[in-house]
Amino acid sequence: MAAKITARTLKGFRDHLPADMIPRRQMLQTIEQAFAEHGFMPLDTPALEYAEILTGKYGDEGDKLLYRFADHGGRQVALRYDLTVPLARLVAQHGGRLPMPLRRYHVGSVWRADKPQRGRFREFMQCDVDIAGSATAMADAEILIAGLGVLRALGVQGFALHLNHRELLRALLQAAGLADEAQQAHALRAIDKWDKVGAEGVRAELGRIDGLDERGVQALMGSFSLTDPAEADMDGAGPAVASQRLLGQLRSSLGDLPALDRLAEVLALLDGAGLADLVVLDPTIARGLDYYTGVIFETRLTDPRVASMGAVMSGGRYDGLIGMFGKQPVPAVGISLGLDRLLAALRELDLVAAEQAVATVYVTLFDAQSAPTSVAVAGQLRTAGISAEIDLQGGKLGKQFKRGHKRGSRYVVVVGPDDIARGVAVIKDLRAGEQFEAPLDGVAAAISDRTEAPAL
Amino acid sequence: MAAKITARTLKGFRDHLPADMIPRRQMLQTIEQAFAEHGFMPLDTPALEYAEILTGKYGDEGDKLLYRFADHGGRQVALRYDLTVPLARLVAQHGGRLPMPLRRYHVGSVWRADKPQRGRFREFMQCDVDIAGSATAMADAEILIAGLGVLRALGVQGFALHLNHRELLRALLQAAGLADEAQQAHALRAIDKWDKVGAEGVRAELGRIDGLDERGVQALMGSFSLTDPAEADMDGAGPAVASQRLLGQLRSSLGDLPALDRLAEVLALLDGAGLADLVVLDPTIARGLDYYTGVIFETRLTDPRVASMGAVMSGGRYDGLIGMFGKQPVPAVGISLGLDRLLAALRELDLVAAEQAVATVYVTLFDAQSAPTSVAVAGQLRTAGISAEIDLQGGKLGKQFKRGHKRGSRYVVVVGPDDIARGVAVIKDLRAGEQFEAPLDGVAAAISDRTEAPAL
Repeated sequence: MAAKITARTLKGFRDHLPADMIPRRQMLQTIEQAFAEHGFMPLDTPALEYAEILTGKYGDEGDKLLYRFADHGGRQVALRYDLTVPLARLVAQHGGRLPMPLRRYHVGSVWRADKPQRGRFREFMQCDVDIAGSATAMADAEILIAGLGVLRALGVQGFALHLNHRELLRALLQAAGLADEAQQAHALRAIDKWDKVGAEGVRAELGRIDGLDERGVQALMGSFSLTDPAEADMDGAGPAVASQRLLGQLRSSLGDLPALDRLAEVLALLDGAGLADLVVLDPTIARGLDYYTGVIFETRLTDPRVASMGAVMSGGRYDGLIGMFGKQPVPAVGISLGLDRLLAALRELDLVAAEQAVATVYVTLFDAQSAPTSVAVAGQLRTAGISAEIDLQGGKLGKQFKRGHKRGSRYVVVVGPDDIARGVAVIKDLRAGEQFEAPLDGVAAAISDRTEAPAL
Repeated sequence: MAAKITARTLKGFRDHLPADMIPRRQMLQTIEQAFAEHGFMPLDTPALEYAEILTGKYGDEGDKLLYRFADHGGRQVALRYDLTVPLARLVAQHGGRLPMPLRRYHVGSVWRADKPQRGRFREFMQCDVDIAGSATAMADAEILIAGLGVLRALGVQGFALHLNHRELLRALLQAAGLADEAQQAHALRAIDKWDKVGAEGVRAELGRIDGLDERGVQALMGSFSLTDPAEADMDGAGPAVASQRLLGQLRSSLGDLPALDRLAEVLALLDGAGLADLVVLDPTIARGLDYYTGVIFETRLTDPRVASMGAVMSGGRYDGLIGMFGKQPVPAVGISLGLDRLLAALRELDLVAAEQAVATVYVTLFDAQSAPTSVAVAGQLRTAGISAEIDLQGGKLGKQFKRGHKRGSRYVVVVGPDDIARGVAVIKDLRAGEQFEAPLDGVAAAISDRTEAPAL
């Protein structure tokens, strides 16, 4: 207990002070409620996993970002990198005890030793919703509907969910002459950087892939420019119509493909939910992670001030991942909302009010004799569901009023010795600037009447 | 993606499956609401801290239990061991930006590489409430009131909060001839094991302390037996009366002590809140952690089936801790509820029902043509705040009914092609065993009318 230790947080890690934490908690509550309304159940997994559970699932770059170490028993362990791989492990581990198909949501922190930048942190919170045990288009649609439902519940506006299918991308790569799977994976990672490096950057990176000659690169870039969703919506008919046009175009160039049938089916279901105009069919969406096998999606905010922040909600179908841990393959699809990035973006757009949580009522404190009555009055309020705090310092009434005012409480309840002798408390409504009295055992009732009165 | 990886969790770490997670989430919501009602604000700190922030605060044993490693930048980091030291770091770091006195609550996981045993895990959740910036008895009382308020909100029965004061213990040690501070710390750790090793075990451990001769040990053990709270309540007058008797006894043997005045003041405030009979003045409570300086407390469940689980809620005043990080000392007091241990105990007592979260409504699925209508009906329900899931597989209606039943949904809504042609949905109330129809755009209204009807 000698030398002072500098009070500081690690780079990329953050404290959430009350003014920041209160809107954050409200968002989390809204998200969890929306997930539950969509028929999903909560679950949780440990922050630490055996390292071998996590490695090899996120590509080489992802592996490098794992917080990994040996624990006290010499086991190689790692902090979870996302909520999807732990879910796959859990389904394989507990399969028989789970209600299948499993519709689960999970809200929790994940850790990545990434380079911190605007909206990107080393510890951040993901809100995931997944269905394991169903390979149907309805499962894909239910995930998209839940994700879009959450964004709407949060009041987020100005966003587009970009939808694609891994097998459609592979068909385009195949058509451009790239058949090797490892080289296809390289190409997917190159295309995944589209919104960071632009078309020219992607073209340059594709040029570095062995199996793709200049003609192949041109063919591929050509098919992307032919299927540009913005182009398809040039007449302003809206994303739903543009998606149908693109589907037609893709069918005529690639022929019948299960991936195109699946996309058409999912789009029809989203249309049924009235959500088709929030979805943009976009063949350039690749998703960096190796484990996706079917539909893939990314949600981008459209406001130019935050467009560079990248995707706020993304995911896809991963039919092979759970089978890596278990006896048999279990198809699965999911979406992940990055709460911290979304919150950072909403703040940037001035859409989140910094709020100070306060007790509704500030109860004054006089002396040792009357203090138990202050406590009793606060207890009465709390029992009635009215938040209350008691002045901790006592002293001059004027100063206590100032502290209550500074705190942001609406009411100050004065219980001085004289008031107690008369059997009353004096209640000041700071918002209305009015003062009234109530019997000591009727303080909660008086305040709750007043708070609910529509006239105020 | 080659060899199978065994799906397993680390020892002392747990998955929370839905049946376990749902009561857990409900408890967390109740706890957070109770804290807010008591006038506390939420905040959050990172899971990882610079190791130097955490080391040296929990004693040598605690230091050994830290999950500690070097991060990618070679920084020594550690997973948080509790929520108190991070709070102290935070107050020192952000002091000026915080509303002081800071009344904050924090719900979050902590990690200790402890030996796993019944009710003790390596990752567990703490629910803390603290006041920083006030040294008053009212601050002590407000913390105790909030803690007891949370237990009551959770419906926990059969518990006692054991209250003591570090300076009272030190005075007893002093009176027994033990003046050296390091030896006093040793004695405190010995006494802290009382509920694990019993009086004889404590006596033996005390005998090993250099500064304490046999007469000193006897004097100390004698004063503990004179101040046995069970003894003081032999006539069944209740803990509140027993506490007053003990206070009198201690005053007559030790004379006037600020610690006794403080305990008397806190007990009077708890009496004002109607909580004095939940509190047992108990001079054998020591608390193992080095940083406590004033009142200290431990809450024990009284049912013999779970009494061995140890304290479920404990804490105390720590006026020196924040000053270790900052320019000036900031007095503070807090209490910490161990959610996992409490939940384990409540389960042991069969007081927690394993619940399966389910959607209220199960919507059927027929074919590609009618599927968008299934989606639309589910959307209508969700928008109305009624949780709904859609059958993902389709097929025979009988099987869909079975799946909905197995899921535990109350209603199954059938939207087959014939029904759609008639503009209706068929709704089966599985609980009432009744079936009725509603117009396609009136399904939510029909179900919500029925669900709210008191006759059901």
